[in-house]
Amino acid sequence: MTQLMLAREGRISAEMLAVSHAEGLDPEQVREKVADGRIVIPKNINHHFDAIGIGEGLSTKINVNLGTSQEHTSLDEEIKKLEISLELGAESIMDLSTGGDLDSIRRELLSRCPVIFGSVPIYDTVSELLNAGRTIYDLTADALFRTIEKHAADGVDFVTVHCGVTRKTISHLQKKERVAGIVSRGGSILAAWMKNSGQENPLFEEFDRLLDIAKRYDVTLSLGDGLRPGAIADASDASQIDELVTLGDLCERARRAGVQVMIEGPGHVPLDQIEANVILEKRVCHGAPFYVLGPLPLDIAPGYDHIAGAIGGAIAAAAGADFLCYLTPAEHLRLPTVEDVREGVIASKIAAHAADIVKGIKGAKERDDEMSRKRKLLDWEGMFRLALDPKKARSMKMESEAYAKEFCSMCGTFCSIHISNLSEKKDK
Amino acid sequence: MTQLMLAREGRISAEMLAVSHAEGLDPEQVREKVADGRIVIPKNINHHFDAIGIGEGLSTKINVNLGTSQEHTSLDEEIKKLEISLELGAESIMDLSTGGDLDSIRRELLSRCPVIFGSVPIYDTVSELLNAGRTIYDLTADALFRTIEKHAADGVDFVTVHCGVTRKTISHLQKKERVAGIVSRGGSILAAWMKNSGQENPLFEEFDRLLDIAKRYDVTLSLGDGLRPGAIADASDASQIDELVTLGDLCERARRAGVQVMIEGPGHVPLDQIEANVILEKRVCHGAPFYVLGPLPLDIAPGYDHIAGAIGGAIAAAAGADFLCYLTPAEHLRLPTVEDVREGVIASKIAAHAADIVKGIKGAKERDDEMSRKRKLLDWEGMFRLALDPKKARSMKMESEAYAKEFCSMCGTFCSIHISNLSEKKDK
Repeated sequence: MTQLMLAREGRISAEMLAVSHAEGLDPEQVREKVADGRIVIPKNINHHFDAIGIGEGLSTKINVNLGTSQEHTSLDEEIKKLEISLELGAESIMDLSTGGDLDSIRRELLSRCPVIFGSVPIYDTVSELLNAGRTIYDLTADALFRTIEKHAADGVDFVTVHCGVTRKTISHLQKKERVAGIVSRGGSILAAWMKNSGQENPLFEEFDRLLDIAKRYDVTLSLGDGLRPGAIADASDASQIDELVTLGDLCERARRAGVQVMIEGPGHVPLDQIEANVILEKRVCHGAPFYVLGPLPLDIAPGYDHIAGAIGGAIAAAAGADFLCYLTPAEHLRLPTVEDVREGVIASKIAAHAADIVKGIKGAKERDDEMSRKRKLLDWEGMFRLALDPKKARSMKMESEAYAKEFCSMCGTFCSIHISNLSEKKDK
Repeated sequence: MTQLMLAREGRISAEMLAVSHAEGLDPEQVREKVADGRIVIPKNINHHFDAIGIGEGLSTKINVNLGTSQEHTSLDEEIKKLEISLELGAESIMDLSTGGDLDSIRRELLSRCPVIFGSVPIYDTVSELLNAGRTIYDLTADALFRTIEKHAADGVDFVTVHCGVTRKTISHLQKKERVAGIVSRGGSILAAWMKNSGQENPLFEEFDRLLDIAKRYDVTLSLGDGLRPGAIADASDASQIDELVTLGDLCERARRAGVQVMIEGPGHVPLDQIEANVILEKRVCHGAPFYVLGPLPLDIAPGYDHIAGAIGGAIAAAAGADFLCYLTPAEHLRLPTVEDVREGVIASKIAAHAADIVKGIKGAKERDDEMSRKRKLLDWEGMFRLALDPKKARSMKMESEAYAKEFCSMCGTFCSIHISNLSEKKDK
């Protein structure tokens, strides 16, 4: 039985207990929201770790995309990326590998992953085709579902499936009103295949086949936004919204089948449309957890898209998005390095935490208040301990000329806190 | 005559023309807003450069804080920071030096600065005291005004003056409700001096003396928020808002005297209070340009406060803030290095641009759309040219395995744009 089915039967599973414990919530409250589909607990029956929840009333979670490409294939490097992500508190890892031996890469990463683990099976199917000297046009429904079943059996907790890329939704694109067209890899593969074959998307047409696999392993479906905007000019257009409506329908079908589901969201979105996108998703997809990629509120920041994504992610999460996919400085430019991953994870943690403060998540603001008390005391070790990245904070202070001093080298004896504390002492 | 006085007389100055030209606006529209105090053009009669406007309807500007501390004094390094800031498009530089020969540092930086230049004169006055073996309690009104006049005569375009730190405003602090107390350097110095002497803040009490100097050189007053929150727990409290109300009164007095004025703002502010802070400032300070420091929507990101500041800055600017003070990764830890300054400037430019898109600033969204068109064409040189940091974008792509390829090493042949373009070509 899936977590959704258990919750509907009124049963509080060990996973629901773990989530309620981690979040400081009442187990019954968690069960109710799992039953309603407002919280998902992505945890494959074959993957053993402390369950993590995503959704309404829970702290904002972040996902880290890892994986090789055909241009750069090093399992060692991907393992290092996994380790740094776990160290910095990522709650989810997605293996997006497209280069090398995909099965062994996925299994190796999964075996080292004590948090939620996701994948995009279509990459695997297409890689097999390309390795066999064939093209994306040779894709078959059977091959795709076979891959999905393989990932599910391996223990993958959630899969991105671009079920909403239908003949109807892509028809809007024929009008050529988009600047950037399709920017989702899965979306572009399916759209090209559909155009070439004249057939409907098998992930849409044979959705029940997908539900059957998902239910058997309790794999959460992450309904991908194959038509997400890849330029701010394309945000919130007919293609995107039509796909979202389709995802809302599929979300209901999945829930009826007892399958947990979340919805993936944009993409490139101007700052003033981000909240609207969250409100719309929550309405049209019946409160399903919203997993956003960014959003990026501008297009001109290559080299710094982790910062652009942190801006959009903080606004989205404050408006109710539940799950942020990180971005690294390398986005749009190259496969991220280990250092890029570090920067990306922290940027995303910053966005999630800024939102959690205003979402009223237990313990969120308390940590900031404790940090500020340590600042007032000029207690550096206390500050480092509470920082999102203690190592970096410590090294920046310790490498400066004021390493052993009460104040830091920025203000020196002009330190406002030092001056105020002296004045307050004098007062007494 | 100041720009404000000229505008009130209905005269369109060369500076107003330069601003309207740069922003693509009608000169008469700029003049009207300068006359109303909704736009300031900080430009000392002794500083020669192409005038830059700050305020309503104009693109969001960013300021870079430079300067030595007693712990770290290298003019060469500060010059390098100035150069990188100019290269990356900063519209304003503040010299906050507190270590070394302050007069020659200020004059050297000013002589190399073809954009707006600001200072905080009280640092200079206090440095003189400390160098003479005295303490902040030996501060006198005469010494402070002498320094301000010296900076004005040197050609400084705007000065931060903490006029709103009054006996009344700091009385709220006695209740000890704040976590972090006073975190403004100028504010903490004045408050300690006032407490010790029992006297009123000379910048408040002798405000007319300040106006007289500012008018003679057309120095714009940047009314500092000495009581800005230094912890999200302290945001929007009575001290902060009481000071803002005082600044609103002083703003009116300055305008009556023909002196240009802008208002400095927080600080550490939770995400859901940022817009309210902007709305309040615009109302209470009669539409005066708002110059925000951050804001930082969380306290626990030392080492990454440029990212935290970009989140807050984007939200503030989208809500109407006009001028963003950058933050570097070194904030709260040490004096920034040249590399920290680069990171800080870009983070701030990202925030400003994300806001300018939704403010409807001419040319803002057009640049993103052009970038997205280049992306769709996989035109890498075009993308680099349009990027906020062309050097970094180019080097990240060029150092990767796909340096000479059409796609990048992130997705390789799985590049969604490559796939879509092939599919579209096949279509034809």
